[in-house]
Amino acid sequence: MSKRLVVIGGVAAGMSAAAKAKRSNPELEVVAFEKSHYVSYGACGLPYYLAGWIENVEKLVARTPEKFAKQGVTALVRHEVVEVDYEGRRVRVAALDEGREFWQPFDYLVVSTGARPVVPPLEGVELKGVFTLRQPEDGVAIREALAGARRTVIVGGGYVGLEVAEAFRAQGKEVTLIELEPRVLPGADAEVSELVHEELMHNGVEVLTGTRVEAFAGDGRVERVVTSAGELPADLVLLSVGIRPNVELATSFGVTTGPTGAIAVDEQLRTNLENVWAAGDVAESRHLVTGQPYWLPLGDVANKHGRTAGTVIAGKKAAFKGVVGSAITKVFERAIAFTGLSEADAQAAGFDAKGVWIKSADRAHYYPNPHPLHVKLVYETGSGRLLGAQVVGHFNDALRIDVIATLLHQGGTVDDLRTLDLAYAPPFSPVWDPLLVAANQAR
Amino acid sequence: MSKRLVVIGGVAAGMSAAAKAKRSNPELEVVAFEKSHYVSYGACGLPYYLAGWIENVEKLVARTPEKFAKQGVTALVRHEVVEVDYEGRRVRVAALDEGREFWQPFDYLVVSTGARPVVPPLEGVELKGVFTLRQPEDGVAIREALAGARRTVIVGGGYVGLEVAEAFRAQGKEVTLIELEPRVLPGADAEVSELVHEELMHNGVEVLTGTRVEAFAGDGRVERVVTSAGELPADLVLLSVGIRPNVELATSFGVTTGPTGAIAVDEQLRTNLENVWAAGDVAESRHLVTGQPYWLPLGDVANKHGRTAGTVIAGKKAAFKGVVGSAITKVFERAIAFTGLSEADAQAAGFDAKGVWIKSADRAHYYPNPHPLHVKLVYETGSGRLLGAQVVGHFNDALRIDVIATLLHQGGTVDDLRTLDLAYAPPFSPVWDPLLVAANQAR
Repeated sequence: MSKRLVVIGGVAAGMSAAAKAKRSNPELEVVAFEKSHYVSYGACGLPYYLAGWIENVEKLVARTPEKFAKQGVTALVRHEVVEVDYEGRRVRVAALDEGREFWQPFDYLVVSTGARPVVPPLEGVELKGVFTLRQPEDGVAIREALAGARRTVIVGGGYVGLEVAEAFRAQGKEVTLIELEPRVLPGADAEVSELVHEELMHNGVEVLTGTRVEAFAGDGRVERVVTSAGELPADLVLLSVGIRPNVELATSFGVTTGPTGAIAVDEQLRTNLENVWAAGDVAESRHLVTGQPYWLPLGDVANKHGRTAGTVIAGKKAAFKGVVGSAITKVFERAIAFTGLSEADAQAAGFDAKGVWIKSADRAHYYPNPHPLHVKLVYETGSGRLLGAQVVGHFNDALRIDVIATLLHQGGTVDDLRTLDLAYAPPFSPVWDPLLVAANQAR
Repeated sequence: MSKRLVVIGGVAAGMSAAAKAKRSNPELEVVAFEKSHYVSYGACGLPYYLAGWIENVEKLVARTPEKFAKQGVTALVRHEVVEVDYEGRRVRVAALDEGREFWQPFDYLVVSTGARPVVPPLEGVELKGVFTLRQPEDGVAIREALAGARRTVIVGGGYVGLEVAEAFRAQGKEVTLIELEPRVLPGADAEVSELVHEELMHNGVEVLTGTRVEAFAGDGRVERVVTSAGELPADLVLLSVGIRPNVELATSFGVTTGPTGAIAVDEQLRTNLENVWAAGDVAESRHLVTGQPYWLPLGDVANKHGRTAGTVIAGKKAAFKGVVGSAITKVFERAIAFTGLSEADAQAAGFDAKGVWIKSADRAHYYPNPHPLHVKLVYETGSGRLLGAQVVGHFNDALRIDVIATLLHQGGTVDDLRTLDLAYAPPFSPVWDPLLVAANQAR
């Protein structure tokens, strides 16, 4: 008799697991439940939808339920799994648009319930015009509200806050970005934050760092943001102060979380319960620099989680060894890329860490229209082991970070970096690639 | 008493060695002789000078003799070393503009005499209007001749030929590119050549492959190119059919060459003769994929050679382990990047090699203005060891090659590539980076 895989949450990890499991073992019956209106969407594209660069939110969808059906995978939207009866190997599903519930049996279960935005318990946070951004529905609501807004406030200067700041400027809005920490992008080192701050100001974003948001005020609809630095008028507010994994359903039937608060999994994405996997933003990964559990809720990681879990569920071999914390974000004309540990994080993690920060260019000194390229390299003194890097450059110049990410996977050193034979031609790099310049300065 | 380093040839490798030796050991006396009018120039920038994108050829110079003098390095242009008396530890120097010669004693010698273009012994090859491109002086002469030319012919479809084809088109000239082999860029695999061919035609370059040039004809000045496919009118011809290392001076006093024809050196760039180093285009490197000597006459390699030799001569530790054959070139809006071995070369080298060729994009499917990105991955069957890659993309999208170059240095496998945590955001990559897509397809 064929086995049945049930997937809870049908976005990146869930639908990757579903599709991969079915492809690898066509005997499997695969059913995925997703409570939003969309499966398999690229949530990381929402800021660009807000910018107006993507016409319809539907464009973010990689594959529709109809396409999944053709592959033999049943994907049901507006279906929320509200209870898991682990002993009985069944889940209770609410068909949200039909007002009915049913029990769905399973042999294998993937928990891919994702994450949700943190909503700080501030006065007035429930006012109309105060948003978080996570699902396509959020995007549609914000873009609609944006049409009538002039003054916007973004609370939180992390990746999402920065991307939305650009999006709102692209729509011609006034934008104030508020960050509690003394600098934007506080996960990066200070040199990087400074360049980001510069880029924001250069593009007309008002930036308030070291500023606490205390309340939102208005008559039914937000009109003012009350902060430690005074009041700001606001027609629209985006809260982007972090996200948390949606672990509650999983823990309710005995799945355990790790030190990060996300679900603990092994290299096959197995949870502590037999026949239950967790994948995507709800699950941890191992950080290959520290060796510790780490939560990296990004779409590319979710896809890899899902693919690995799906392969294993289909009875084949696969392993997800871990992450090195790579990320990149576009802030107007600059890209900020990150991998491994920042200098501050490396020291906090107990490494005898040192950093070098260099400014170079993205092409030979004589080639026209150069752009600055900044590299921060973090390494262990003595051993020279690489611990991380940050690159700030013009658009995809910053993808050079991937060389360092690759070395981090291999446990590479500054010496390994110094001797790399990277591709060189005048339009693409100075004769000494900026990464090599940084390595040559690391002592 | 202080020791004296004499450097023969003051371009990339020579001046890197000179400057690094002096910086690392200020006691050293350092003298460099260069027979052209310029030291420390970026020869790889000449095609862009021809395109008119760089105003003066002087812009290609990284550091002038005056700047070197301030660092305590004597750099003499228009000075040719015509003889080496190794037993007597002295070189005979011709001061070309002064019509005199002198003997210069040395303790340490760096041979960095570079390479020269191959000039095929064809009838009419000495006609005016038939050029090769290697030194700034060549560039100046070609650009001058170009002003009065309408129809240009480029013989040879390697990197330089392709770059000059673009340059001549940028100057509004008619361009015919002739390649003896059945396809352009014959060092790459066929899929890559096809895209390059397409890009050339798309930009108005006439391409004749499988065509032999038999003679040049004209009355004092070239007027026609005689080929196996008939005669072509031509006002200007560029020969770019390869280069050869300038080893003659070195071999004349007992320095030995390796199997590539360039000078054999160890990891400290030492030749077989005590106190004699060779660096740059005149010297071999080790290919870290095959383990064999390899000749990679590129500016970035030359700089690394020179830096290593200079450090060692100064009495410090340094090693140049080798290359993996990385290169990149711009052909109009496409960039072609290369590392390791092509599938054909890998098979010729005795590997049980396989290749995958994928087409992806440089950004998420929903992000506007995507460009195609093609990846060829070459690997060993069974072990999955990576042997090489080729990437064709839009401008610096192709720098992704550096990830593969890094893995080649580390002896990485397809599995290592598959599990890399590369930086992802929708403007910079699909959620599955094209390199990972290729790895996932490699079996």
